[in-house]
Amino acid sequence: MVRRDTRELILATSLALFNRHGEPNVSTNHIATEADISPGNLYYHFHSKDDIALELFKRYLISLQPVLELGDNERPDTEELWLRLHLMFETMGRFRFLYRNLDDLCARIPNLRRAFHGLLAKQRRTLERLLGGLVSHGIMEIGADDAQLLLDNLLLVMSSWIPFAEAEGDPGLEDGSILPRAVARVLHLLLPYLRQPEASQITALITQYREA
Amino acid sequence: MVRRDTRELILATSLALFNRHGEPNVSTNHIATEADISPGNLYYHFHSKDDIALELFKRYLISLQPVLELGDNERPDTEELWLRLHLMFETMGRFRFLYRNLDDLCARIPNLRRAFHGLLAKQRRTLERLLGGLVSHGIMEIGADDAQLLLDNLLLVMSSWIPFAEAEGDPGLEDGSILPRAVARVLHLLLPYLRQPEASQITALITQYREA
Repeated sequence: MVRRDTRELILATSLALFNRHGEPNVSTNHIATEADISPGNLYYHFHSKDDIALELFKRYLISLQPVLELGDNERPDTEELWLRLHLMFETMGRFRFLYRNLDDLCARIPNLRRAFHGLLAKQRRTLERLLGGLVSHGIMEIGADDAQLLLDNLLLVMSSWIPFAEAEGDPGLEDGSILPRAVARVLHLLLPYLRQPEASQITALITQYREA
Repeated sequence: MVRRDTRELILATSLALFNRHGEPNVSTNHIATEADISPGNLYYHFHSKDDIALELFKRYLISLQPVLELGDNERPDTEELWLRLHLMFETMGRFRFLYRNLDDLCARIPNLRRAFHGLLAKQRRTLERLLGGLVSHGIMEIGADDAQLLLDNLLLVMSSWIPFAEAEGDPGLEDGSILPRAVARVLHLLLPYLRQPEASQITALITQYREA
């Protein structure tokens, strides 16, 4: 196997193991065994588990990038909204180990902490623009104070559905069936501020999502 | 010092250290040094850090008990609502280390996991009764589906404001200044479903809280 393939194999194996068992419960030896390579070979590519976690965080950021970008002239309608959220949550689910031990990872790896704070700021800006777009197109009606509190809650719910589901022992994390419920939950936060016909459209989407 | 006092001293010292540094970063030796007792004396009272964490969780549940109990004939008005939430969040803040590493603690200590699931179920019932009371007294207007989603979001936000603030590096966790903001955030979730004059009362409370 060429070097680059081994590196990718280590990352893919680590991601699967971290997601399944939680990052603190997986050792580099465990990863090497599962990837069927020697510990020395693993060490050649990554000097520590922290290096692997940080590289996976970078991949996570790259995967989120297109979801968080908004075109300048785009009119964000309700379709756009649920698509963005669905893609964002799907990506988060693929890297869910990050959210399960975020506090520990941030405390241990300063570069990951910085990157996470950057991501939060970016998610906030994207949500701000999305809400601003909904308001300017007459789809949403909300005052400045309410918009700020809504934004806080959106960001909190988006960042917390994974650790909360882990703590609750939700089996849907493993098979992905939690995804539609998580999206429905976030859409529900927006609902009170949407006008018609968008409010009815979102209500219909929520019902679909919850029954999925 | 009598035995009982030493036990309480160990618990108080552990709670302060766990909250400040995070439970994974505090050793039993660290606790013994800070409490100015020998490691052997600590071991006499608690055989492991898990025993201490579990005992602190029990204390947390006891502190929450009166906040989560609702009298049968009580008319839950908006005053009652904010008082309950404020007391609940204050108690959570006093034991905040539990929420910082909840997933790890639950994985490590099965009794803590069981107790936490019991607490979640109890919090859900209390919230259900609180919302039910608001509806039956004509203060809140909400359909059954919306009530379910609102409940999910309330429970998620209530359980997640501490780890989210930790991950964000919010300094308000240490000095308690985060408390009014956290309560305002939860009250804001209820606002769209409240009738007048309660909606205006809650809006005024939120403004007060945010400026506190």
